[in-house]
Amino acid sequence: MKKYLLAPGPTPVPSEVLRAISEPMVHHRTPAFKAMVGQAIEGLKYVFQTKNDVLIFASTGTGAMEGAVSNVLNKGEKAVIIRNGKFAERWGEIAEKYGIVPIYVDLPWGTVGQPETIEKLLNKNPDVKAVYTQLTETSTGVVMPVKKLGEIVSKTDALLIIDAISGLGGQEFYMDDWKVDICVAGSQKGLMLPPGHAYAAVSEKAWNKIQTSTQPRYYFDWKLYRKKLATNTDPFTGSVILIKGLLKAIEIIKSEGLDIRFKRYKVLASACRAAVDALGLKMFADTPCDVVTAVKVPEGIDGLALVKKMRVEYGFTIAGGQAGVKGKIFRIAHMGYIERFDIIAVISALEMVLSDLGWEFEWGAGLSAAQKILAEDYK
Amino acid sequence: MKKYLLAPGPTPVPSEVLRAISEPMVHHRTPAFKAMVGQAIEGLKYVFQTKNDVLIFASTGTGAMEGAVSNVLNKGEKAVIIRNGKFAERWGEIAEKYGIVPIYVDLPWGTVGQPETIEKLLNKNPDVKAVYTQLTETSTGVVMPVKKLGEIVSKTDALLIIDAISGLGGQEFYMDDWKVDICVAGSQKGLMLPPGHAYAAVSEKAWNKIQTSTQPRYYFDWKLYRKKLATNTDPFTGSVILIKGLLKAIEIIKSEGLDIRFKRYKVLASACRAAVDALGLKMFADTPCDVVTAVKVPEGIDGLALVKKMRVEYGFTIAGGQAGVKGKIFRIAHMGYIERFDIIAVISALEMVLSDLGWEFEWGAGLSAAQKILAEDYK
Repeated sequence: MKKYLLAPGPTPVPSEVLRAISEPMVHHRTPAFKAMVGQAIEGLKYVFQTKNDVLIFASTGTGAMEGAVSNVLNKGEKAVIIRNGKFAERWGEIAEKYGIVPIYVDLPWGTVGQPETIEKLLNKNPDVKAVYTQLTETSTGVVMPVKKLGEIVSKTDALLIIDAISGLGGQEFYMDDWKVDICVAGSQKGLMLPPGHAYAAVSEKAWNKIQTSTQPRYYFDWKLYRKKLATNTDPFTGSVILIKGLLKAIEIIKSEGLDIRFKRYKVLASACRAAVDALGLKMFADTPCDVVTAVKVPEGIDGLALVKKMRVEYGFTIAGGQAGVKGKIFRIAHMGYIERFDIIAVISALEMVLSDLGWEFEWGAGLSAAQKILAEDYK
Repeated sequence: MKKYLLAPGPTPVPSEVLRAISEPMVHHRTPAFKAMVGQAIEGLKYVFQTKNDVLIFASTGTGAMEGAVSNVLNKGEKAVIIRNGKFAERWGEIAEKYGIVPIYVDLPWGTVGQPETIEKLLNKNPDVKAVYTQLTETSTGVVMPVKKLGEIVSKTDALLIIDAISGLGGQEFYMDDWKVDICVAGSQKGLMLPPGHAYAAVSEKAWNKIQTSTQPRYYFDWKLYRKKLATNTDPFTGSVILIKGLLKAIEIIKSEGLDIRFKRYKVLASACRAAVDALGLKMFADTPCDVVTAVKVPEGIDGLALVKKMRVEYGFTIAGGQAGVKGKIFRIAHMGYIERFDIIAVISALEMVLSDLGWEFEWGAGLSAAQKILAEDYK
């Protein structure tokens, strides 16, 4: 059975990228490899839309999240953490490990809240050193108002620190224009690579704060990585194969153009939403993002069975809900190497599974609604 | 020009492994992938020669080294660190970051010292919690007396913690028989994989100590990884492609047999030493290991030029010296996917370069000496 991967990471890897990562091994201290690292960093700056330093880590995204706490804040310092999903909660878990004093803005999963709440909090607590949130929260499918948060936080001494692990390269995002201080990302989502690379883009305002940090750290000591930027090297043994893959992936992204990609994912998301609506289902996110569509499992349907049938009987790996929404939502990702006929295929499989499970809907309605948008608006 | 990679990591990757890592992406939470992780862990236990838990990290070896400090020792606790090379020094750097009180046993690079020194130190300092050293020290080419250290340390409450990053799979090592408590390794050396995976094998004695640790950590929190062993999952998004590669690499290692491999690398090392001797050069290590041969650059020869000429003019990537021995030694690695005719080739290139640089020797003497051993003793 042919396999389709529409989960929110790892995402499918284009065959050109797979070929690049399986070339014979090169040594990481050779001039040829250093040139590749330099080119990869330049490419990442384009994807982040930043002039800031970009650091590359051999780890998954969580390693860069940890670094965005352990390099930045000292024990006892305050941080505002918007907590509205599994990865939002991860910011909190990491901060607590490092003795940060978190000021949580707890919101129901699937909602994004009001930027004004953050503004009031920062005014009331001028000693807050950082605000942590996501660009897109993978667990719930929301997009956060990062641009608006940038306007608010940049007026203060605090840093705006964004986890764009699932959003980067798909969800509209302009790091410098939006006044984001630190943005972390991973390889296995919008960048169309296997897991194993994490990235962090770091502003001067952030570097100034990093100078004051005294937390213990070694492998994720960002100052070590910054020093090595001058020579395009890694303090340790970087992931040679992912650098090669990254160059190919960036080539693909550049040849299409980032803004065109942003629009394209917006259309994929809107086609999914139209299908969800036409099938009589409800969206989970109040402000849905463009890279993953989270759908409420309707009453009377077994959400775990739905996801399992998609995979086992039809070959489609999508995602269920995590933690508190386990069995209550399912998620179709459209990040990275996903195009319009992948959406047609997954909606078709979804209709088959819903029908198997006894959900009543007009056969083909989801397909037809999605197809209309994908025919008219997709470039 | 055809390229040859004989540096101490990354090492060449067999084409079967390259093919495995470039298969289409699979999701890391599927039953099929979990089965692969379970199989990979069983395979690693064979390579470590242990019944202990083996943890897999998406990072390079240094991440596992850091974890072997941050998970184990608390601020103010004492550790003995044998410091006789660049990676030995790394144990010290990490320990100091975490506020450990190091008792350094400083030895000249290229030497291994006496196990009895450690015995005396432990008797004098019964509050020492761990002894840190290497199996093979990549920067100098020595093999440490790990078996003997195991006999000594196992009689105390301290843990014996071994960095086997460059040695595992090539240098003779039996974790359980040798009473090692924690052993860390990486993918890009003896295991014949690209960089990006680190491993840690952890004894019950070590887990008991880990229960008491209060250092801040998140991505490398070993207790998180241990919990996930029951389901063969990773707390984060593991490196899917390296798991696939690892299965293939372990298949290759098992089909040959670990003990036969140990003997084979011993013969490769002894052939290199015979060539070094025949060319009138001197070994750097007082107790040379089987996975890398470190050679003193003779008076009047430019060591940096030697390494550069090997790469640029003949296509051979070998390694120079690091830090204090930069320009003073060169290193030929014979770890991982290296066989006897790779040694013949690199010795031939070395003779050409030495001749270019004006070193006087009997043309072909290195080749002939190496070939004799490789013909007679190599299985």
